[in-house]
Amino acid sequence: MTSPRSKAIAIGPEEDRKLVKAIERGGAVSTPLSDASALIWSAGPSDFPASLPDGVRWVQLPSAGVESWFDARAFEAHPSVEFTSAAGAFAATVAEHALALLLAGVRALPEHLQARSWEQEHLIGRVGTLRGATVTIVGAGGIGRALIPMLAALGAEVVAVNRSGRPVPGAIRTLPVSALDEVWSNTDHVVVAAPATPATRHLVGSAELARLPRHSWVVNVARGSLVDTDALVEALRTESIAGAGLDVTDPEPLPDGHPLWRLTNAIITPHDSNPTVLRENAYAEHVAANVARFVAGEALIARVDPTQGY
Amino acid sequence: MTSPRSKAIAIGPEEDRKLVKAIERGGAVSTPLSDASALIWSAGPSDFPASLPDGVRWVQLPSAGVESWFDARAFEAHPSVEFTSAAGAFAATVAEHALALLLAGVRALPEHLQARSWEQEHLIGRVGTLRGATVTIVGAGGIGRALIPMLAALGAEVVAVNRSGRPVPGAIRTLPVSALDEVWSNTDHVVVAAPATPATRHLVGSAELARLPRHSWVVNVARGSLVDTDALVEALRTESIAGAGLDVTDPEPLPDGHPLWRLTNAIITPHDSNPTVLRENAYAEHVAANVARFVAGEALIARVDPTQGY
Repeated sequence: MTSPRSKAIAIGPEEDRKLVKAIERGGAVSTPLSDASALIWSAGPSDFPASLPDGVRWVQLPSAGVESWFDARAFEAHPSVEFTSAAGAFAATVAEHALALLLAGVRALPEHLQARSWEQEHLIGRVGTLRGATVTIVGAGGIGRALIPMLAALGAEVVAVNRSGRPVPGAIRTLPVSALDEVWSNTDHVVVAAPATPATRHLVGSAELARLPRHSWVVNVARGSLVDTDALVEALRTESIAGAGLDVTDPEPLPDGHPLWRLTNAIITPHDSNPTVLRENAYAEHVAANVARFVAGEALIARVDPTQGY
Repeated sequence: MTSPRSKAIAIGPEEDRKLVKAIERGGAVSTPLSDASALIWSAGPSDFPASLPDGVRWVQLPSAGVESWFDARAFEAHPSVEFTSAAGAFAATVAEHALALLLAGVRALPEHLQARSWEQEHLIGRVGTLRGATVTIVGAGGIGRALIPMLAALGAEVVAVNRSGRPVPGAIRTLPVSALDEVWSNTDHVVVAAPATPATRHLVGSAELARLPRHSWVVNVARGSLVDTDALVEALRTESIAGAGLDVTDPEPLPDGHPLWRLTNAIITPHDSNPTVLRENAYAEHVAANVARFVAGEALIARVDPTQGY
């Protein structure tokens, strides 16, 4: 990644005007795949070429999570190609969504929305504040880092959890994932924003939920598998925590009739934290930034590391 | 307000341990009213003394809005006394509530909360973002000013409207109230945070609502009378705007069976932006700050100006 590279970059599987412009903003030109040194992809793995021309050295994928690409063995099939995900591209909008879910919960909006009368004795004491509250963000990647200043502006104190424990800017404390046990009884709320890997499966399970305070909201904007759904349903049903804001679930899609649909302290947004209407522009910005780096021979943003699983 | 004053301050109508401590933190001592040079009040106007000892020169009132004190002619009855409200004391929690209502609306949480199935075609395109959105805050007092950095952290552009048009820190533009007409077709969302005065009554009416874009949310955390409720109901019913988040209504309490209760694009929180559990601590902080200023002979925070009506 030290020498400038070709400025011929392909788009697949279909032409896309926003991506053509993004490539141009990045200082390159869009070109057929046969002549290209890179490929900007805007679909899933199923249509992805089984083999790529030798000239292709970089492939940009359109999603932040790349589990399906691992499942499709795409990285193994192209060992000499550098893949980048769109991790970070959608960070701000997903972080905003996480804040919306958390604030709605803390401010008891689901209960308010059910009310049909001004006198709401059952709501007394239910409205809380993020001011002075401790919010732990598990996973301090793009989403977590984008969320920190939003929470800070509300006067919350953010504890970040990442792999290394290396301090995350804006967090009052950063814990390594090895110290995750310390989190649950020392936080008011939890936002799950970590990648889905075998190691993070059911990171929030019954033991963890049991140690959270009763006023806690758990927000998951990462992947459903990070939370043990059965344990969560039980915690919500017994009100051992205050509620959950879920943009992702396990299983997903959440089947009709699933208990989560009936729990009034669950806010479910079916993978809506980053809707199409918002993501196209965000992906184009990400592509422009990475193309500029590719052309300049600089390190690309959001490199997929097959050994880490994301 | 230039010379230091007595440090003897009374509390009424009842002793209150938090307020005693607040007075002490401010550098004074609590004392019976007969010996006091100031009175910290923690109730409404009905129990307020018809006459005050001559020594009393300052009265601290516990609410941010003081209409009921005007109605009770309290300021006229005590022309030589300086009154301060609690304006600003609850600004941060009310601003947080306004943000919760606005974000919940923009992220379509009311519609999501009604859903019982993952496939939600009616929600496609309904989830928006505050990033890059223009949010106009009408009334740049304590609440408005506290809200600006919260919105800025989400990437929104804030337009502030105040009486003078004097630039408000953090706002990309500040308009004088005389230019309010310009607001409606040049904003994405509106937060009403102005004091209730004859001049601000029905500040948001049918003409104003008609000029807002269809994706607009209107949030009112000030007083119900600032919004024409009938016009709002009509705008919500016809979906000429996207929704309304109301912590206050007119009439208030909102009667059972009122159309607003049935509109799914209205989020109503019955004066819950600043619940008791949060306000006691906030009031005590405000009292401590004002006592310190009183003792030091400095200008007090949130002086009531009877000529302005707040």
